[in-house]
Amino acid sequence: MNVIVIGLGPIGLAVAAAVQRDPDMTLAGLVDLDSTKVGKTLKELHDPAAPGGPAVVRSLDEIKSFDLAIVGTTSYFTDMAPLLRQLIARKAHVVSSCEEMLWPWYRNPTLAGEIDALAKKSGVALLGTGVNPGFVLDSLPLVLSSMVLEVRSVRAVRRLDARKRRRPLQQKVGATMTVQHFNSLKAEGKIGHKGMAESVAMVAAGLGVTIKPGSVEELLEPVVADRDIDSMLGTIKPGQVAGMHNVGKWSDGKLSIELDLTMSCGVTDSGDHVYLDGPVPLELHIPGSTPGDSATVAALVNSARILPKAPCGLRTMLDVGRIAAARVVA
Amino acid sequence: MNVIVIGLGPIGLAVAAAVQRDPDMTLAGLVDLDSTKVGKTLKELHDPAAPGGPAVVRSLDEIKSFDLAIVGTTSYFTDMAPLLRQLIARKAHVVSSCEEMLWPWYRNPTLAGEIDALAKKSGVALLGTGVNPGFVLDSLPLVLSSMVLEVRSVRAVRRLDARKRRRPLQQKVGATMTVQHFNSLKAEGKIGHKGMAESVAMVAAGLGVTIKPGSVEELLEPVVADRDIDSMLGTIKPGQVAGMHNVGKWSDGKLSIELDLTMSCGVTDSGDHVYLDGPVPLELHIPGSTPGDSATVAALVNSARILPKAPCGLRTMLDVGRIAAARVVA
Repeated sequence: MNVIVIGLGPIGLAVAAAVQRDPDMTLAGLVDLDSTKVGKTLKELHDPAAPGGPAVVRSLDEIKSFDLAIVGTTSYFTDMAPLLRQLIARKAHVVSSCEEMLWPWYRNPTLAGEIDALAKKSGVALLGTGVNPGFVLDSLPLVLSSMVLEVRSVRAVRRLDARKRRRPLQQKVGATMTVQHFNSLKAEGKIGHKGMAESVAMVAAGLGVTIKPGSVEELLEPVVADRDIDSMLGTIKPGQVAGMHNVGKWSDGKLSIELDLTMSCGVTDSGDHVYLDGPVPLELHIPGSTPGDSATVAALVNSARILPKAPCGLRTMLDVGRIAAARVVA
Repeated sequence: MNVIVIGLGPIGLAVAAAVQRDPDMTLAGLVDLDSTKVGKTLKELHDPAAPGGPAVVRSLDEIKSFDLAIVGTTSYFTDMAPLLRQLIARKAHVVSSCEEMLWPWYRNPTLAGEIDALAKKSGVALLGTGVNPGFVLDSLPLVLSSMVLEVRSVRAVRRLDARKRRRPLQQKVGATMTVQHFNSLKAEGKIGHKGMAESVAMVAAGLGVTIKPGSVEELLEPVVADRDIDSMLGTIKPGQVAGMHNVGKWSDGKLSIELDLTMSCGVTDSGDHVYLDGPVPLELHIPGSTPGDSATVAALVNSARILPKAPCGLRTMLDVGRIAAARVVA
């Protein structure tokens, strides 16, 4: 399978390296708009030990032939749509970390329907996935729910120490900011986890419930340091922002869903937790939490391996067709 | 969807009751050979509060029309095959708790191929599933593995307190037996968890590895009481058997799989645990363990809900097509 990678931030580069190492895939192209990257190979951009492979090009049109594209360029499905149309026209399957693409029907049902129809017509499958959204707060609760007949509520909690993540993630969660700065970014919609409402919508859909666009309550607040906390952006002082706390909530009186995410420097009880309530309560824990960066790469590459066997159209983690399992260490 | 239930032990009766309660299913028939059950309804056999519904019949031929059969009659795929042929001829989908049907290619690859071809020709899907095999020691490790690129070993441990299970389960695990009796039953192949090697084969397949029939090492030993332990079969005395410990192991030097099951009266650290080792180790825990009886019922009924949408043929939990999630409490 010839795979190209579009969007070469740290995750995109790691994805490309994983594709290059995968015996079932050939890295057939790299695309990024950043002129400092164009013309360079993975060897130069990511890992001196990597085999050469293709050089980065600015446009898809410069790549002759490929079967599947792994895309990490935007969080927004509307921004993703033009690229999806191009890729569908090239008859390529698509796996993307675009957060809204996890459940595009939540914010953009009409556009999602159009893209789905185009993909079906062209015989390709498209999937939005990742660790979050894509696994911890949505797929995992639904997988666990297969072991009970009925649920009344789904609660999933992800707490992770941003100190263990890359620098851009620490910036993204607001580390070292003043609370005022955090709140002004929040007011502009420029800070906060993307995909929370999509995770809620997917959990509901998995339980047979369709929720209305806009009906998920999303909460966002800064986590304020109560002590000196180290970070890659310098020491976070007491009173400064250490990270963020995001909650997505929905209920119709019969079913309630609450997804709770804390990404903050200095979290000492990192972990992923799922709680199902109903006639038979059930819970599940991943101590230390699923490691975000490496798991995002894994989610994209493992999904790429199975997607060509999935039914055509705009697929979701709910119905992608196979368990996207890992490979054995080569 | 018109659903029939074949095999009306405690699990079969609970499945039938769940089907009867499900708004998307109609209980269209009950089949059992036991003459004390024939002619009776769920009201008489299971729950006085149940609506009447169909009476038990001895033979499939007495039921006019149905879309799907849930079958719990045997642990062995060869014993299951004649019934599968009948059901395929009736153009019915099948979900079964038959342990060997989880991965029938392990012991009976030729027969599995024949049944698969028949099912495809008839346009129906067949699935073997349950909590174990079907979830804790096979599906769950593979689902978790989607969050890493590569694994070197998969270890899953299920420890459960048989005191919390029904009486037949306590008998099945050997509670109150002498060690000698346990070992003589073991020598005759009359005691021990079924489906362990199938779980190992499924895990391997999910990781892209095909293992040879007979290559899984299966260990079985009694768990001996070291104190008085209550059970539904009477007090288990020190030195008597409290339960059993089953292990399935396989390795080719690159990948190793070890599935470890203890079902014993008096287990105080009940739990399900998955450990993936590789470049990024990952683990998952279900404290208290997934409750066996109710989860088996849930696995069967939840899978029945999605199976008609799966591709035709002899399917597995690896590729059934959708997450088999629960329903919201009615």
